[in-house]
Amino acid sequence: MKAARFHARKDLRIEDVPEPDLRSGAVKISVAWCGICGTDLHEFLEGPIFSPAPGHPHVLTGEAAPVTLGHEFSGTIEEVGDGVSGLAVGDNVVVEPYFVCGECGPCREGNYNLCTKLGFIGLAGGGGGLSEKIVVDARWVHPIGDIPLDEAALIEPLAVAHHAVGRSGLTAGATAVIGGAGPIGLLTAAVLKGLGITTVVTELSAARKEKARSSGVADHVVDPSTDDVKARVLELTGGAGADAAFECAGVNAVLDTMLDVVKPAGVVVNVSIWGRPATVDMQKIVLKEIDLRGTIAYRGDHAAVIKLVREGKVDLKPFITGRIALEDLVDKGFDTLINHNDTAVKIIVHP
Amino acid sequence: MKAARFHARKDLRIEDVPEPDLRSGAVKISVAWCGICGTDLHEFLEGPIFSPAPGHPHVLTGEAAPVTLGHEFSGTIEEVGDGVSGLAVGDNVVVEPYFVCGECGPCREGNYNLCTKLGFIGLAGGGGGLSEKIVVDARWVHPIGDIPLDEAALIEPLAVAHHAVGRSGLTAGATAVIGGAGPIGLLTAAVLKGLGITTVVTELSAARKEKARSSGVADHVVDPSTDDVKARVLELTGGAGADAAFECAGVNAVLDTMLDVVKPAGVVVNVSIWGRPATVDMQKIVLKEIDLRGTIAYRGDHAAVIKLVREGKVDLKPFITGRIALEDLVDKGFDTLINHNDTAVKIIVHP
Repeated sequence: MKAARFHARKDLRIEDVPEPDLRSGAVKISVAWCGICGTDLHEFLEGPIFSPAPGHPHVLTGEAAPVTLGHEFSGTIEEVGDGVSGLAVGDNVVVEPYFVCGECGPCREGNYNLCTKLGFIGLAGGGGGLSEKIVVDARWVHPIGDIPLDEAALIEPLAVAHHAVGRSGLTAGATAVIGGAGPIGLLTAAVLKGLGITTVVTELSAARKEKARSSGVADHVVDPSTDDVKARVLELTGGAGADAAFECAGVNAVLDTMLDVVKPAGVVVNVSIWGRPATVDMQKIVLKEIDLRGTIAYRGDHAAVIKLVREGKVDLKPFITGRIALEDLVDKGFDTLINHNDTAVKIIVHP
Repeated sequence: MKAARFHARKDLRIEDVPEPDLRSGAVKISVAWCGICGTDLHEFLEGPIFSPAPGHPHVLTGEAAPVTLGHEFSGTIEEVGDGVSGLAVGDNVVVEPYFVCGECGPCREGNYNLCTKLGFIGLAGGGGGLSEKIVVDARWVHPIGDIPLDEAALIEPLAVAHHAVGRSGLTAGATAVIGGAGPIGLLTAAVLKGLGITTVVTELSAARKEKARSSGVADHVVDPSTDDVKARVLELTGGAGADAAFECAGVNAVLDTMLDVVKPAGVVVNVSIWGRPATVDMQKIVLKEIDLRGTIAYRGDHAAVIKLVREGKVDLKPFITGRIALEDLVDKGFDTLINHNDTAVKIIVHP
């Protein structure tokens, strides 16, 4: 079968590899669509980062490069292994793409996304969504009912957003500011809207502002180059400030703004990945008793996310901006994300 | 009566001022002891910071410099105003030294320490503990029972520590790291110990390490100049990491260490005041899903703190390192805190 295999930095090959064998406790999935994640792009351009370098196999998978990429995928169950219940041939599914040890402190406390040995399917081995077939332990497989398979490829990044929102503790009726309308900012706004929270999106790029508006996820769009964001948020909240703010840009000025716009005792969730240290005015955190909270991936979010999409509270269609074949992964996928990152939100690949 | 009045930077005068008049809803307190806070010192050296400059009266008190200093005080009720219940002449008391508006968002949510107009007795007007008498609204007056009046002058900074510990959410059986054994670090460790939490204090200064040990508040003392703090904390916690860590130094290297020593999903409370921005490795906050929480002053902590002291769970005696008369405030008080800040913990003043 065909698979996109990461060998080394800027060395990604579409290769023929053996189809994976079914094992007990697992299912074989025929992949329908797989989204390209920023992580895949970084792995290609600057890796190995999360993928195990040759000679340094991942502690849980035992595999090292080359590895198949792709962790944002949907598909249909083709075979069911011994001892699997609740899943059947023909089920459309998505995957929570984890390898966890089950033994460390975080795993024992149920925080398996913080497993000290954590690995991802599609980065650490175990195959990936950028291939025709994959075998996944049943524990991580979530049926999606009637959600179309193309939209379902976005459930994984939507789970990232859902977990970030969960970290904020917000409930319906609150007001949130989302700093940055890239893919994860838009999906964070989508989850917030779906939960009945008023969303204020800050963004500089005209294309991204337009997407935030046209997708319906932003109740208000504020441009920090022309608007006083703090004044605008105070105005929108009757002088109170936002209940929470989400840093979705990995940009210091955005983080500063998020600390400014939350009300006293408010929460700032950092959703972005940072390539360098941030400069933080600790006095803002002190004098307003802000909680600055990290968030990474998801745990136990998939069922709630699937429900939000099935009930129509989140519409994923506006965020699919490209559909390509596996052969075009680099030329039409990575290159578009690098050169047109304003207009491209999520490009999905059909293997 | 005598009072220590802040006129301007480095202009503090011991003056004769009229005794304050009793008003309804308030009590008149004869001050026994008043601690010198770092805030008082900063006000003297670099102010006005919290105190209202001449011509810029505080919005709640209507007062501007000169103002009487001192907000960490104990005393005995001498007169009781109309409409006051639960307080009697002769009661020994301490004061939660606030002016709050009662109308802003934080006040309405009960977070009165985050009042948008917040002022402090002893900084913003309303008299101060560095005078013979003071009149305080009954709401802010807490009877201390049989706690000696000298020790009671430390209840205010102990309430700061108690609120910081409350922000961590820790309960008995947990392990905490305290970064810095200055006055607030020692008192934070004291509260933690009093609540049954294991304390690991990191400190460079020999005198402060000795105080952390001899006062009994540190179960373990670690010196970052000779020990690998993270390795030591992992060893002490069976490989897990600390449940929470308290930055009590306002030093970037200490903040970095606090982020390193907490376990995944752990909490870092920033207790210190920062004079400049911090450099923060956001990836530590992201990948471990750390909560970095600010804390300022206290709200509703005094009763619990008084109980801890009355039950003998916190012993304040080791932290009184000097007793001086009001006339010696600058020469024996401020100067000692500036020039011997390793050995001086809390100097209390008898007006």
